[in-house]
Amino acid sequence: MSGVWGNKIKYSIFGESHGNAIGITIDGLPSGVELDIEEINREMRRRAPGKNKFSTARQEKDEFEILSGYFNGKTTGTPLCAIIRNSDQHSKDYEKTKNLMRPGHADYTGFVKYSGFNDYRGGGHFSGRITAPIVIAGAIAKQILKKKGIIIGSHIKSIRTIEDNFFDEIELNNEFLENLSHIEFPTINKDKALEMQEEILLAREDRDSVGGVVECAILNLPTGIGSPFFGSVESILSSLLFSIPAVKGVEFGAGFSISKMKGSEANDQFYIEEDRIKTFTNNNGGILGGITSGMPVIFRAAFKPTPSIVKEQKTVDIQEKKDTTIEIHGRHDPCIVQRAVPVVEAVAAMGILEML
Amino acid sequence: MSGVWGNKIKYSIFGESHGNAIGITIDGLPSGVELDIEEINREMRRRAPGKNKFSTARQEKDEFEILSGYFNGKTTGTPLCAIIRNSDQHSKDYEKTKNLMRPGHADYTGFVKYSGFNDYRGGGHFSGRITAPIVIAGAIAKQILKKKGIIIGSHIKSIRTIEDNFFDEIELNNEFLENLSHIEFPTINKDKALEMQEEILLAREDRDSVGGVVECAILNLPTGIGSPFFGSVESILSSLLFSIPAVKGVEFGAGFSISKMKGSEANDQFYIEEDRIKTFTNNNGGILGGITSGMPVIFRAAFKPTPSIVKEQKTVDIQEKKDTTIEIHGRHDPCIVQRAVPVVEAVAAMGILEML
Amino acid sequence: MSGVWGNKIKYSIFGESHGNAIGITIDGLPSGVELDIEEINREMRRRAPGKNKFSTARQEKDEFEILSGYFNGKTTGTPLCAIIRNSDQHSKDYEKTKNLMRPGHADYTGFVKYSGFNDYRGGGHFSGRITAPIVIAGAIAKQILKKKGIIIGSHIKSIRTIEDNFFDEIELNNEFLENLSHIEFPTINKDKALEMQEEILLAREDRDSVGGVVECAILNLPTGIGSPFFGSVESILSSLLFSIPAVKGVEFGAGFSISKMKGSEANDQFYIEEDRIKTFTNNNGGILGGITSGMPVIFRAAFKPTPSIVKEQKTVDIQEKKDTTIEIHGRHDPCIVQRAVPVVEAVAAMGILEML
Amino acid sequence: MSGVWGNKIKYSIFGESHGNAIGITIDGLPSGVELDIEEINREMRRRAPGKNKFSTARQEKDEFEILSGYFNGKTTGTPLCAIIRNSDQHSKDYEKTKNLMRPGHADYTGFVKYSGFNDYRGGGHFSGRITAPIVIAGAIAKQILKKKGIIIGSHIKSIRTIEDNFFDEIELNNEFLENLSHIEFPTINKDKALEMQEEILLAREDRDSVGGVVECAILNLPTGIGSPFFGSVESILSSLLFSIPAVKGVEFGAGFSISKMKGSEANDQFYIEEDRIKTFTNNNGGILGGITSGMPVIFRAAFKPTPSIVKEQKTVDIQEKKDTTIEIHGRHDPCIVQRAVPVVEAVAAMGILEML
Repeated sequence: MSGVWGNKIKYSIFGESHGNAIGITIDGLPSGVELDIEEINREMRRRAPGKNKFSTARQEKDEFEILSGYFNGKTTGTPLCAIIRNSDQHSKDYEKTKNLMRPGHADYTGFVKYSGFNDYRGGGHFSGRITAPIVIAGAIAKQILKKKGIIIGSHIKSIRTIEDNFFDEIELNNEFLENLSHIEFPTINKDKALEMQEEILLAREDRDSVGGVVECAILNLPTGIGSPFFGSVESILSSLLFSIPAVKGVEFGAGFSISKMKGSEANDQFYIEEDRIKTFTNNNGGILGGITSGMPVIFRAAFKPTPSIVKEQKTVDIQEKKDTTIEIHGRHDPCIVQRAVPVVEAVAAMGILEML
Repeated sequence: MSGVWGNKIKYSIFGESHGNAIGITIDGLPSGVELDIEEINREMRRRAPGKNKFSTARQEKDEFEILSGYFNGKTTGTPLCAIIRNSDQHSKDYEKTKNLMRPGHADYTGFVKYSGFNDYRGGGHFSGRITAPIVIAGAIAKQILKKKGIIIGSHIKSIRTIEDNFFDEIELNNEFLENLSHIEFPTINKDKALEMQEEILLAREDRDSVGGVVECAILNLPTGIGSPFFGSVESILSSLLFSIPAVKGVEFGAGFSISKMKGSEANDQFYIEEDRIKTFTNNNGGILGGITSGMPVIFRAAFKPTPSIVKEQKTVDIQEKKDTTIEIHGRHDPCIVQRAVPVVEAVAAMGILEML
Repeated sequence: MSGVWGNKIKYSIFGESHGNAIGITIDGLPSGVELDIEEINREMRRRAPGKNKFSTARQEKDEFEILSGYFNGKTTGTPLCAIIRNSDQHSKDYEKTKNLMRPGHADYTGFVKYSGFNDYRGGGHFSGRITAPIVIAGAIAKQILKKKGIIIGSHIKSIRTIEDNFFDEIELNNEFLENLSHIEFPTINKDKALEMQEEILLAREDRDSVGGVVECAILNLPTGIGSPFFGSVESILSSLLFSIPAVKGVEFGAGFSISKMKGSEANDQFYIEEDRIKTFTNNNGGILGGITSGMPVIFRAAFKPTPSIVKEQKTVDIQEKKDTTIEIHGRHDPCIVQRAVPVVEAVAAMGILEML
Repeated sequence: MSGVWGNKIKYSIFGESHGNAIGITIDGLPSGVELDIEEINREMRRRAPGKNKFSTARQEKDEFEILSGYFNGKTTGTPLCAIIRNSDQHSKDYEKTKNLMRPGHADYTGFVKYSGFNDYRGGGHFSGRITAPIVIAGAIAKQILKKKGIIIGSHIKSIRTIEDNFFDEIELNNEFLENLSHIEFPTINKDKALEMQEEILLAREDRDSVGGVVECAILNLPTGIGSPFFGSVESILSSLLFSIPAVKGVEFGAGFSISKMKGSEANDQFYIEEDRIKTFTNNNGGILGGITSGMPVIFRAAFKPTPSIVKEQKTVDIQEKKDTTIEIHGRHDPCIVQRAVPVVEAVAAMGILEML
């Protein structure tokens, strides 16, 4: 089962890249929330392709339609379903090679799992396109959180081996975080952005691809959110982050680096400032015992390079059961990290709203 | 909510470190499975303290009792509950400092979440002790998986900055993996084990602590397990891994390193061998599109250093609302990574059984 | 939360009577199932209004569109979403009286629950129209069950005080049950059908309404389906049956009558026939200890009379907070029992598929 | 899966009648609730056998022990597990007849479902004894609800054909409802109680058994609790009520009788009294569109007569696959309705707490 997540709020996604429509139903939203449709569209545009020379040429019209749960500009509190009609589908692109299992893709695993009955066109239900409805749901969640003063923002931490600063190295505040969402290629250090974009263009010319890491921060979360063990903030957020296609690693706070520290370095020591409890450092990423501490919640998700590359690769023909090769043509991003930024924020918002 | 996980099989944990008992109920096990009680005990001993000079002095009697779901040596198929009575509790150790929020611990966050009503003794419900019932459940899951030919094994990948080899660098087979569980300090490279143990002793002498990384592999999983998006193998396993106290990072296959590769390097190209489809490399850790590919599933979990250190630390007094300091005495491990190895395998088994 | 049900298979419904569309997403269907679209349409027509003089004059176009999870005539195994566009909406019918709480309806309770933000037109999300997507999901479930030899069928047991025979009084077989679905007003005793239809016409002339009971049977269920306690067949089916608007009672086997019997009468004694275990009687409705016994599963659902009647009724004006009266005009069924028959079968199919 | 119920609060039951212990874990309770242990014991005594001549001779010691989630007299907010050790077990009573499938019991269905591996002694996991932990959980839920002013009470509506009044026929108030729980054989009409008790004694003398109906009322529920469709109050409560062994029918308000009324009779017309909205009648049992209306929630559960009767019955030997007969000796209640009263209240409390 792939499509339903949540306990307090349940999200059900559906759709194949070349099917009639993709969409999501959100059940459990509070009633009376005024939705800023233009803001949702803005989030969609952050994700949309065809925008610039770093992204795919495919024009995905991401116009969505809300079918239910929304009346007179506000949520009704009943299930809200939003769909996006698929268009600009070059289904023939996939017909010729449907028996060739593209390396790094879910062609093979999906073929086995669904006994060959899956819609293979454009990656079917595995397509990164299915993250579009997730961005809609996340945009709605973000608006609800924002009304409660909770701000979510992120930047591109790295593209291949080019590294930006960590959020933990700067002074985080609402304004800074929110501004990031208005930057096309968001980084803390502007020079790094240029180096990263160079990497991406080089990859394109080389008929190859690159990956990267997105770092996300959540400010002003109340203390006490989350639960020990199965309901930990890390468990909830990671289950959503690893739902995003291409994610292969998730870490909180200092993450894997914390395992290299001594306890005396790693521990975030407490102090009081104006009746508020804070820590001098934030290696735990704002989470202790699975529960928010009031410090910024910070995490990173690692994205593998786009599997669709033009370079010739070895593969197998699943019908003829023999070795062969494949060159993937069509319109593909040499890097999807930039497009993944709003998706990371979207699932973060979904996860936080669930736990609040 | 902290205690219930699963869909097909539901696990409910409960217990505080100094309460009457800790335990777990497993609902959904198949009937007629013959349980090897001695094997479960062996797994418990891998986790148990007081075993050697690298671990805590506290003697935890981990004798468990099965209250239900088990009859005439076999599972009945009805809910199976196993409990462990708490003993050797030095509750006074915690009484004096209950208002001092130990850095890196859940004292503060638990206090806020439970409005001060949580059992703070020995970490209460946040204590690493609560991983003991998880090892019981995992041991049962491992036995069921083993009957299906699925083998789970792990080693200590690193302690602080001392690094062992990766599983991906060697030839993995059932025998090798199973043997690891019989090694007290399991590594691929024996020399590294000695270096790591040195690190731990140094930390103890220094009244400090160290962390590390556990790497786990699962062999012989059928292809096609897991689902895209919310039901991905990474989502399921990570939600369990991040449930283990002290875990701050989880990665699959090449993990964060994959984000530094080019697509041509990262993609695992396919080939056929004796009618079986394999890949030349395994950077995706045996998972494509959230679904198992038949290659070994490999992942790593990063553990932060034990927060309980004797060194003086800055903290706050939660009652008096003022800055102060704390020195944590009592009996604590300078490193819990060794004890975490069977816990990592336990949750891996629980997760796999859920998805099969 | 109103819209998500299920564990193994998850159903998410959405939609308001006068919103853009109503629909349902089904997650967890097996792949490769060939769907008979015409059969689904037939089930929809059994439910549809405007068919005859016993039903509403409103023309509901129930043309549905499958958005996902269906490719080349078969299920893909990924989430399947089906929607129905709303049409023939006379929204003005409801505008004038939106502050008058119609007795027996959810106007008042929905107003309170959703703080006045619900879409009140045509009953909004409470409308019986929302059972249309449920019939689609049930129709799909029925087709899957039929391939396994499991047959579901039902009849109108009573309209007001006119009683048809019980299923338990006749010889049930596949053919008889399946034929019932082709009868417009299905009863065992044809004469009773005529009496019942008379009652309905009388109610219409009298500007009033009547209710009734639907009895449903499921044949050829394997023995051993369901679980004790929370997973009992009765619990699963009743939770779905009581989801249908207007249901106020559910009983299995002899139902409430069994409470009037002695144990010696009520107990279904066992016997063996050609190596199959059966019972002489079936007062337990094919379920023992929450688990199917192999005998037909039989249950009944009681429907209250349609709340929308033209007769003047006392009510309150929710804005002005004062007593007043209301006469409900518009196009309403004097009896919805006939239309509810396929809905009862639909949820029965959904519940059985979940437990198989 | 039989043992886990709930979304906001999760209940996990476990235990076999003759196993080591039976119990329940409750996850999601608020912290800081002071529990009245004596009150829980009182509820247990209402259920306990050996009390009087109408009940079983078996002495069930229902002393429970709270293993976790309870500290210094209050709930901690972490999972609370309570167990009851089994004692006074005459396991030999069941050994001789374990291959004879007792009519009306789950011997046969349990045998098939669990492939013969279930613990058959004393009914194993199907035993009515497993309702004891449910009463503990319900008692806790009732205390929490009571602090919010919500009162739950019930009476024996009928034993066989002897009928007591309906709750709807009298003036319900908190005091009256609460007093019912202090009456050993609670009815509205005292004379009926005597007649009912006569029926039970006659059944015992006749080596037979009788069933009956329990009617329950919930007062002071806020308006707006529950959801349309899958989350309806009827769905939630019925799924719990049908979990109780022996329940074969559940109805709300006028229940099955409402199907015999006309709309003008059935509809509960509204009026305002001191700014509160009420209805003249309450045929809908306080629930409209699956949501509470503020009127008392009233429902009834029908219990079949105790299957264990001494009278000889026809049955089959499951090993030898042949027809035979059985006489059930041992210590059994001729009627369990009286003991079921606190169980009905318990699950009602669990369900309401879930929806609040």
